[in-house]
Amino acid sequence: MPRYELFYWPEIQGRGEFVRLVLEDAGLDYVDIGRKDPDRIEAALEGELAPWAFAVPVLRAGDLVIPQTVAITRYLGERHGLAPADEAGRLHAHAIALTIADLVNEVHDTHHPISVMDVYEKQREAAAQRARVFREVRMPMFLGYLERLLGHDRTSDGRFLAGDRVSYADLAAFQVIEGLRYAFPRALARIAGDLPKLMALRDRIAERPRIASYLASPRRLPFNQSGIFRHYPELDR
Amino acid sequence: MPRYELFYWPEIQGRGEFVRLVLEDAGLDYVDIGRKDPDRIEAALEGELAPWAFAVPVLRAGDLVIPQTVAITRYLGERHGLAPADEAGRLHAHAIALTIADLVNEVHDTHHPISVMDVYEKQREAAAQRARVFREVRMPMFLGYLERLLGHDRTSDGRFLAGDRVSYADLAAFQVIEGLRYAFPRALARIAGDLPKLMALRDRIAERPRIASYLASPRRLPFNQSGIFRHYPELDR
Repeated sequence: MPRYELFYWPEIQGRGEFVRLVLEDAGLDYVDIGRKDPDRIEAALEGELAPWAFAVPVLRAGDLVIPQTVAITRYLGERHGLAPADEAGRLHAHAIALTIADLVNEVHDTHHPISVMDVYEKQREAAAQRARVFREVRMPMFLGYLERLLGHDRTSDGRFLAGDRVSYADLAAFQVIEGLRYAFPRALARIAGDLPKLMALRDRIAERPRIASYLASPRRLPFNQSGIFRHYPELDR
Repeated sequence: MPRYELFYWPEIQGRGEFVRLVLEDAGLDYVDIGRKDPDRIEAALEGELAPWAFAVPVLRAGDLVIPQTVAITRYLGERHGLAPADEAGRLHAHAIALTIADLVNEVHDTHHPISVMDVYEKQREAAAQRARVFREVRMPMFLGYLERLLGHDRTSDGRFLAGDRVSYADLAAFQVIEGLRYAFPRALARIAGDLPKLMALRDRIAERPRIASYLASPRRLPFNQSGIFRHYPELDR
């Protein structure tokens, strides 16, 4: 029996990818339930994961049912060497991961500003407006915050977002940069020069042996137009 | 010197109110910095709270700077008797509080679906559409989830969302119901009959001595049209 079971949609990276990266980088024994048995996710939300899960991703660890992306990555990170050791660092990693989750929510709403129940094509006008504000104001604001974190802590020499080692917050930052490179390549290219430490962090994470191996494997799904990060050229002017 | 300092905007309940309720219910020694010195919040974000805080609320506990609403309430709750004692309960309280935070984000976007930089009046059409989806689909979905949590756990007899005692998740549920009663009284009244356990939880929290005393005090700001929960009759049909 595997140590961990991840419940998430099998067709997209989505929020589940933040969990997959931690599981992979820590070299943990896990099963990606949705990839093995796509029909089980919807059933699980009304069955074996109820009533605790409002949505996936959910991690099962033995008898524990853990919903919510940041709750899962924090749980895994603190148990498997991907979180700072001290209390201040742990609190900072948690807050940074939550802020990245807020950024991910805003990315989602660039293509779904009105309703998650409707397709993008039915909310294009509002999406164009919301995406403009995201590109010009919100994205630079969030990424500037991450850049400042990397410049601050003398003990880490700008290498880690929190504490003195790689944490789930750094893995989350990697994933959000990858997603933005896919969804908003033009807008990101315009500001990347102002984010040298963040871009260097992205590169260092990509080179970590287990992450590099994962990214090259069929377990890493490609970005696509069903996920949270979607590339609509008209939203990336 | 007070044990805790809360940094939040002084004019609104907003996300800071989730922290205030925990501080008040636990009877903690704290200063609401913004209420004492309104000019200090903006300055603090660029000064004493940098680089850790992307936004307020932020809690300062001695040398610790703790941003993000749920990170703060979890920190306080686990230290001061407002969290379950066991690991499963703590993970569930954390996930429930994060899901309530997601609900709060969606409430915010009913009146600001396009841009936080612009006033509601400049995004009324999109707001009308988003608010309809919120009233008809999202709000019942989130509140139904909370209701099912209360019905599930035999040990708590439906009294608590997680574990066997009142937690910061229960206080958050109280606050979100209060907010929805202010912002969407008609829409909430339509579904309240399907949420008997959640409404009873709201009443029990309101009657807790320290909460009742806080709600009757000038420390409890009234809801208003600058906060997250706003009442626009045209959005509450």
